[in-house]
Amino acid sequence: MPAVKTKRMPRAVREQQMLDAAVQTFGRRGYMAASMDEIAELAGVSKPLVYLYLNSKEDLFSACIRREAKALVDAVRAGARPDLPADRQLWSGLTAFFTHTARNPDGWSVLHLQARTHGEVFAGEVAAMRAEIVAFVTQLILAAARDAHRDPDLPAAEVAGLAEALVGAAESLADWANATPGVTARQAAATLMNFAWAGLGDLMHGRRWVPPADDEGDQQGSTSPVR
Amino acid sequence: MPAVKTKRMPRAVREQQMLDAAVQTFGRRGYMAASMDEIAELAGVSKPLVYLYLNSKEDLFSACIRREAKALVDAVRAGARPDLPADRQLWSGLTAFFTHTARNPDGWSVLHLQARTHGEVFAGEVAAMRAEIVAFVTQLILAAARDAHRDPDLPAAEVAGLAEALVGAAESLADWANATPGVTARQAAATLMNFAWAGLGDLMHGRRWVPPADDEGDQQGSTSPVR
Repeated sequence: MPAVKTKRMPRAVREQQMLDAAVQTFGRRGYMAASMDEIAELAGVSKPLVYLYLNSKEDLFSACIRREAKALVDAVRAGARPDLPADRQLWSGLTAFFTHTARNPDGWSVLHLQARTHGEVFAGEVAAMRAEIVAFVTQLILAAARDAHRDPDLPAAEVAGLAEALVGAAESLADWANATPGVTARQAAATLMNFAWAGLGDLMHGRRWVPPADDEGDQQGSTSPVR
Repeated sequence: MPAVKTKRMPRAVREQQMLDAAVQTFGRRGYMAASMDEIAELAGVSKPLVYLYLNSKEDLFSACIRREAKALVDAVRAGARPDLPADRQLWSGLTAFFTHTARNPDGWSVLHLQARTHGEVFAGEVAAMRAEIVAFVTQLILAAARDAHRDPDLPAAEVAGLAEALVGAAESLADWANATPGVTARQAAATLMNFAWAGLGDLMHGRRWVPPADDEGDQQGSTSPVR
């Protein structure tokens, strides 16, 4: 048993190195242009070993999608702070999301661009992750609305719509932030707070939602500019 | 010359029939599963004629994307009402958008799902249309903010981010509305107004943005439920 264990450990580590190299290559070159030669070289292993471990380019890409989807969902869940008031919860969740997408631009590109551009199987894996995030956000909005006892009757259908709007806006802003030099994760999160929390109506009247000054280092540095 | 003209007219009409059949088939079956046999049969023409007119399945799909992209952009532009106050402008634009996507669910599926799932060339065509809509929305938000003289200094970068957020939210809600029985175009537009104009903050306090009662028939029936 110990012998098996020591044999397996290096494999797990090497697999992660291959996935790191694959995410970087798929994210930057695109799925079609990425070559297994390049991925193997970047991972510092032989191409046959990549095939031995991950089977095919398709399976390697699927493994990348699953790993990056889990990392993103974990980051968003970790950013949830149910103890905070609703606006601070949203701010915390959004900074966690944009910090993760800013720090992992290749992973975000794999999930939001590459996976959806290369066939229904890959797109389906990402759709499942997205549905999980929408369900999570729906619960957060519903809990916030009910806890506040201010609009306990917010219809479930409208909450579902609001969660879709929030997730769609966040996806679009993550693409934009990663493609726009100088836009930090904190700025992207603040833009979405202004949009989604304060609302364009307040914004037009010069009433902005202002990020709290006291949340620096609030959650492992996620609120400080990351680029 | 007149002879050429009468010869061309039926071709243009028949081409539109083929495109109608192709949009319906691609939108419902998906790009891969859609067959040229099925498209020709639905259009009431022979398969060789479809190839003669549109050349290949790829070219036919590209023609569908271009036609549906133009129709969507035209619908959104037609919904712009620069004479109205900013909130009514947004309401008018959103109802035009959701009315179009609700009335043309196959066209929306081609643009937002199929085109992005089947390779970089098709995805690129949709990205160009999306960039045009984002630029248009950016100008609307900028003009509204400046005209109001309330926040004339709203930074251009933040306006660009707000436009991305609004477009991303609208895309996500259009998918959701078309997939959710009983959600009308007007309801989807009202949800996005609550989200983007009133803001979640106001919504949590029970302050909703209420669609104006007097806009029925405001713009060719686009504000009435379409399903």
